[in-house]
Amino acid sequence: MGFWKSLFTTSDAASSQTASTGGYIAEAKGVDENARIFFSTDRTIDLYELEELCDAVGWSRRPIRKVRKAIQNSFLVITMWEQKGNRRRLIGFSRATSDHAFNATIWDVVVHPDSQGKGLGRALMNQLIKKLRSEDISNVTLFADPDVVNFYKQLGFMPDPEGIKGMFWYPD
Amino acid sequence: MGFWKSLFTTSDAASSQTASTGGYIAEAKGVDENARIFFSTDRTIDLYELEELCDAVGWSRRPIRKVRKAIQNSFLVITMWEQKGNRRRLIGFSRATSDHAFNATIWDVVVHPDSQGKGLGRALMNQLIKKLRSEDISNVTLFADPDVVNFYKQLGFMPDPEGIKGMFWYPD
Repeated sequence: MGFWKSLFTTSDAASSQTASTGGYIAEAKGVDENARIFFSTDRTIDLYELEELCDAVGWSRRPIRKVRKAIQNSFLVITMWEQKGNRRRLIGFSRATSDHAFNATIWDVVVHPDSQGKGLGRALMNQLIKKLRSEDISNVTLFADPDVVNFYKQLGFMPDPEGIKGMFWYPD
Repeated sequence: MGFWKSLFTTSDAASSQTASTGGYIAEAKGVDENARIFFSTDRTIDLYELEELCDAVGWSRRPIRKVRKAIQNSFLVITMWEQKGNRRRLIGFSRATSDHAFNATIWDVVVHPDSQGKGLGRALMNQLIKKLRSEDISNVTLFADPDVVNFYKQLGFMPDPEGIKGMFWYPD
């Protein structure tokens, strides 16, 4: 069974079979010819490796305990890996919360700086959207920092559709 | 044990004890003197009664099966009830999805038209926020239709903070 099939036909979002069965994205540009790019929905992630990835893009450190809890309670987690020979490196991460029925919200999309500009962020997001749609989620949402609004627009996300505003609560 | 205590000290968001143990909001304005207003986190809701409430505010009908699934998979559900004598009527509903660690997103906030303009929507939201904060959720978010942006502003929600945009995915 091909990789994509094994990734996207399973109803178990926490399936652990995908990282090892492999496959790669033909359309990824500028990727080292000796490297293969893999996606996985496996949640048994080395959280220190994830922290390293988040450090690389300058995110604030978050308690590992809470990151673990957030991953466990996300509806979907998709990681992106670069494999060269026997070495596999985490180069991307994304997750979504959901009510499993109508709405999903995407959080913590990150691609390692060395892997940016190669279409991999786009590929990661497309996998996330494809999986959410296959689960019959109709409303896929996110909150975008100003510098990535155009990136998400190119993927089909619209800011403030029909005047709907994203809002954040601030303590008094 | 007082109502508020029984509602907000339980760690089980699906606790069923609250609707019947009762208590009422002193600050609710213009409420019939013979009526008491209750909040509950109990999820065993008559989904046809909920549909009736959503019909009353003109929402599009949604499949009961999916509504049930969404309620089951929400992090928190808070309903608001008006009790007169032995009769209890569902007059408000709200729910939130979450990763149980960092982020929550509020969906489906509804107050029956007969109960609007009395501070009850505000009271419902305050309970929701209070409960989310008590669970150590730091990022409380929502997507607001244009006509309710000011309502949420008054509750402490800010649109597009630091230029962060709410975005929705639309199929090609």
